[in-house]
Amino acid sequence: MTTPTHATPEHGDRQTAVEEDLLQRVLDSFSGCDDPRLREIMEAVVRHLHGLIREVRLTEDEWRHAIDFLTQVGHITDDTRQEFILLSDTLGASMQTIAVNNEAYRNATEATVFGPFFVDDAPAIPLGGDIAAGAQGEPAWIEGTVTDTDGTPVPGARIEVWECDEEGLYDVQYDDGRTAARAHLVSDEQGRYRFWGLTPVPYPIPHDGPVGRMLDAVGRSPVRAAHLHFMVTAPGLRRLVTHIFVDGDPQLAIGDSVFGVKDSLVTAFERQPAGTATPDGRDLGGKEWSRARFDIVLAPEDIPDTHH
Amino acid sequence: MTTPTHATPEHGDRQTAVEEDLLQRVLDSFSGCDDPRLREIMEAVVRHLHGLIREVRLTEDEWRHAIDFLTQVGHITDDTRQEFILLSDTLGASMQTIAVNNEAYRNATEATVFGPFFVDDAPAIPLGGDIAAGAQGEPAWIEGTVTDTDGTPVPGARIEVWECDEEGLYDVQYDDGRTAARAHLVSDEQGRYRFWGLTPVPYPIPHDGPVGRMLDAVGRSPVRAAHLHFMVTAPGLRRLVTHIFVDGDPQLAIGDSVFGVKDSLVTAFERQPAGTATPDGRDLGGKEWSRARFDIVLAPEDIPDTHH
Ligand SMILES: [Fe+2]
Ligand SMILES: [Fe+2]
Repeated sequence: MTTPTHATPEHGDRQTAVEEDLLQRVLDSFSGCDDPRLREIMEAVVRHLHGLIREVRLTEDEWRHAIDFLTQVGHITDDTRQEFILLSDTLGASMQTIAVNNEAYRNATEATVFGPFFVDDAPAIPLGGDIAAGAQGEPAWIEGTVTDTDGTPVPGARIEVWECDEEGLYDVQYDDGRTAARAHLVSDEQGRYRFWGLTPVPYPIPHDGPVGRMLDAVGRSPVRAAHLHFMVTAPGLRRLVTHIFVDGDPQLAIGDSVFGVKDSLVTAFERQPAGTATPDGRDLGGKEWSRARFDIVLAPEDIPDTHH
Repeated sequence: MTTPTHATPEHGDRQTAVEEDLLQRVLDSFSGCDDPRLREIMEAVVRHLHGLIREVRLTEDEWRHAIDFLTQVGHITDDTRQEFILLSDTLGASMQTIAVNNEAYRNATEATVFGPFFVDDAPAIPLGGDIAAGAQGEPAWIEGTVTDTDGTPVPGARIEVWECDEEGLYDVQYDDGRTAARAHLVSDEQGRYRFWGLTPVPYPIPHDGPVGRMLDAVGRSPVRAAHLHFMVTAPGLRRLVTHIFVDGDPQLAIGDSVFGVKDSLVTAFERQPAGTATPDGRDLGGKEWSRARFDIVLAPEDIPDTHH
């Protein structure tokens, strides 16, 4: 790797030489690392960290603030609160990592952030079943197909779905041990799936800590655009972790706090007035409901290089 | 600021567009920040963080390792152990911040890292006094002048000096409350100073935590090159925080663990056989000793732009 040169026209050649000599010495300190990947990463960390400090001409006070901020992030983090992940999420670093590891491939459905609220072993439901299990909210009928990128249906795909209730809370955020608004189902012989869920609503990420104070200082909302989580797996195909978002959600314009939104994932949840007949004849007791279609296209597990 | 383009020839244009679009959305999220400096810093943080992830094609596993590492750094940090500073030091970020804030200026003495062992209100000693106060080690006579960059002597400069003992420990690392091997003195009417200290010896930074494990994983030494700390202040002149290093110290070739060394700060500590007459007639009881000269040149407090 080459050392980037930084445009610092306001500084003399001698000052630039001092800064670049220091950077080079730090890079050279990793020359004895016998793990080439670790060496590559550490060198890139150093180049970017020094690039940052040099470009903004970081003051010693600002450096101290940065140390204090990271210390606060470290101290609020425990087994149930992961503020470093919130920081990564709100700086778009989580989403960029997802992007790098789920390369755009033909018509494959785009991935987005995993989030902290997935739970292994969510209950199985049959096709057309209801994931709510008592979670409050407006019913939503969601259906679609799972295919590969050639359009061939994928039968037997495992589809995990999870979402918050109308209060903006996931089941695991209640302390009564409930399991609700999460389930898994399996696509049929034609790759089709369908279930009842809840029309997604926006919710804030935890924002009573240093990351929330950062968002506040820069004038950003902690709220996530309304979404329903999907994780889809099938043999020989790339695992897809994604959401669908709700077309018309005002938070889409304000901005999702973790940058999870992709245009291709914004989905019409068509409003159904109370009394509209349901696809499966279910009686919703006079409630309004919505319906959405989400056709899922899975990339191959190993993407051929020529198709990148 | 402009968005840097990343050379990712192995990825298609479409993948590049996905990654750059995400980066741009994150940058745009700071457009409502009404503190222009905070906005500049956050944007630079985001550009470098995303640049890092994209350049190394960070895997999701590596991202999790990074989160775990930072969590460990956060959890070992408390009132007396600051692992984030150690991390900044060992990545050269502290030293680069020093470089940026102490710009090279004419013949001014170069700055280096402050370190964690400075103590306010160290005892005053007269010119020619001894800073050891019981600290064990080989005596060293250190003398020199304080001038400005025009060579004019600076009388009345306050010179703080501190160092470790022959065990590699500062007084504050003992739990008996001792004050030793630290003091302050004041330059005379001709800007001269002189004192007895200890010939500096190398010591390791705390390396029983995640930063120590990182150094181990990349094959780096936690040891700092032998040094004696100086902080020099005088009205109208730029505060100088620096060290002198010991010419011939083998750690200079191995590498100082926090990148504090500058060639201009490497100083001859001339070996004096036992019995050699001392400059002030002091009887060292048959001990070997060393002597060093360090002439200090202070930059003006406000450096004229044309001289950068
Ligand atoms: Fe979520
Ligand atoms: Fe030190």
